[in-house]
Amino acid sequence: MIEPTDRGLTLGDGLFETLLALDGQLVDAEAHLERMAQGCQAVGLPPPDPGEALRVMDEALRAAGGDEGRFAVRLTMTAGSGGRGLDRPEPLRPVLFATAAPSARPEGPARLITSKVRRNEGSPASRLKTLAYLDNVLARREAAERKADEALMLNTRGEIACAAAANLFWEAGGRLYTPHLDCGVLAGVIRSKVIAAAAALGEPVRAVRAGTESLREATSAALTNSLIGVRDVKSIDGRALRPSSLLAEIARRAL
Amino acid sequence: MIEPTDRGLTLGDGLFETLLALDGQLVDAEAHLERMAQGCQAVGLPPPDPGEALRVMDEALRAAGGDEGRFAVRLTMTAGSGGRGLDRPEPLRPVLFATAAPSARPEGPARLITSKVRRNEGSPASRLKTLAYLDNVLARREAAERKADEALMLNTRGEIACAAAANLFWEAGGRLYTPHLDCGVLAGVIRSKVIAAAAALGEPVRAVRAGTESLREATSAALTNSLIGVRDVKSIDGRALRPSSLLAEIARRAL
Repeated sequence: MIEPTDRGLTLGDGLFETLLALDGQLVDAEAHLERMAQGCQAVGLPPPDPGEALRVMDEALRAAGGDEGRFAVRLTMTAGSGGRGLDRPEPLRPVLFATAAPSARPEGPARLITSKVRRNEGSPASRLKTLAYLDNVLARREAAERKADEALMLNTRGEIACAAAANLFWEAGGRLYTPHLDCGVLAGVIRSKVIAAAAALGEPVRAVRAGTESLREATSAALTNSLIGVRDVKSIDGRALRPSSLLAEIARRAL
Repeated sequence: MIEPTDRGLTLGDGLFETLLALDGQLVDAEAHLERMAQGCQAVGLPPPDPGEALRVMDEALRAAGGDEGRFAVRLTMTAGSGGRGLDRPEPLRPVLFATAAPSARPEGPARLITSKVRRNEGSPASRLKTLAYLDNVLARREAAERKADEALMLNTRGEIACAAAANLFWEAGGRLYTPHLDCGVLAGVIRSKVIAAAAALGEPVRAVRAGTESLREATSAALTNSLIGVRDVKSIDGRALRPSSLLAEIARRAL
């Protein structure tokens, strides 16, 4: 249980990672811990000890019955309790914990709508998995209200950023694109693997600062995150897209 | 204690209010509860029952020994536990609780620096007190590192928005200004009282969408929030300001 004065709860002052676990094994654990460590540096928190982080995730996974099957494991680090209002206490006493739950693959390709909630590229938090994720919750809520599966988020400059809980790739004119990290985009673990697999295949992904007009030229698109892997996009704002054999081949090599 | 799966903790999915209590009495409780109810509507959460909210705040205040003196009371409402990732559960089981602690008046006028962290006017959360307050924590941290007391936040359009934990007013050419709410600004309880008191004095406050050049013409400025009331600004990015007899008179009438 968590103290009601924990700054993760009261202020969103902390970070998280979501990992896939297959038959009791964490996938890409090193990459996730490295990203959390980089996020800690960005927000001024001490990075968790990797051994301790692995231990709490493993315990949560076992406790949830995750020795077999497909599970989501979430590692959360908060700035702990204390401090006066916004100001962190000295010394900090961060809190680290994990939870785990069964995680089914999403069914079929995703319908996207463009959310009214903008991604704040003017904050370092837009490139991190922070506990201050309400914008993403609101964007996803808008998607659900409009009978869609996911929300496409633009940044405040109107550039394509990402989905509420996934990175985005698209294919146009036989070329692959993904939003540049400085558009307010998480450096997704699967995003990196897809970019590397595409490069190895001789089909480099262009990291671009692009407006929505670029998406209107897309013939295919896909979402990526650690739980879904690579998921085709069925439509964006009602405009149908078709599955991409190129993206499917890259996904096979990346995952 | 709070569950580790509470969405307030994991996603910043919730709202809060910070109230002043003087000698055991909550100040402006009705205005704070009304604002939380409006915030709930904006983010799609059911508003807390006012009687229940008053009861948990009163209990927290008594438990903290707040029958005498100056206390800060914080009311927090979270979306509770449950749901799959970003998606809220049906039915929602919101969690409501309060904490209280002694709150000294800040000493002297505030030194401000302009933060690099931008306020996201493209999100409804920028106008609400949400649990996703990490941007404000980061802005305040930047202020502390630069030996200042508070951080001035611009929005992503470069307009003046607010301080990390306060609204901003300034005087220039004998006139009073404050950022317009659509600049990504909380509708502060004290902000409203200052605007009303100024109008009653025949000195209307202009709610403006203004860039930093406007602040360079300011001769005085003040921060407002429920705990500090009205606090003079000593300097912004090293440029000294002087106390304003007009703002001081308005503060006397507003509080």
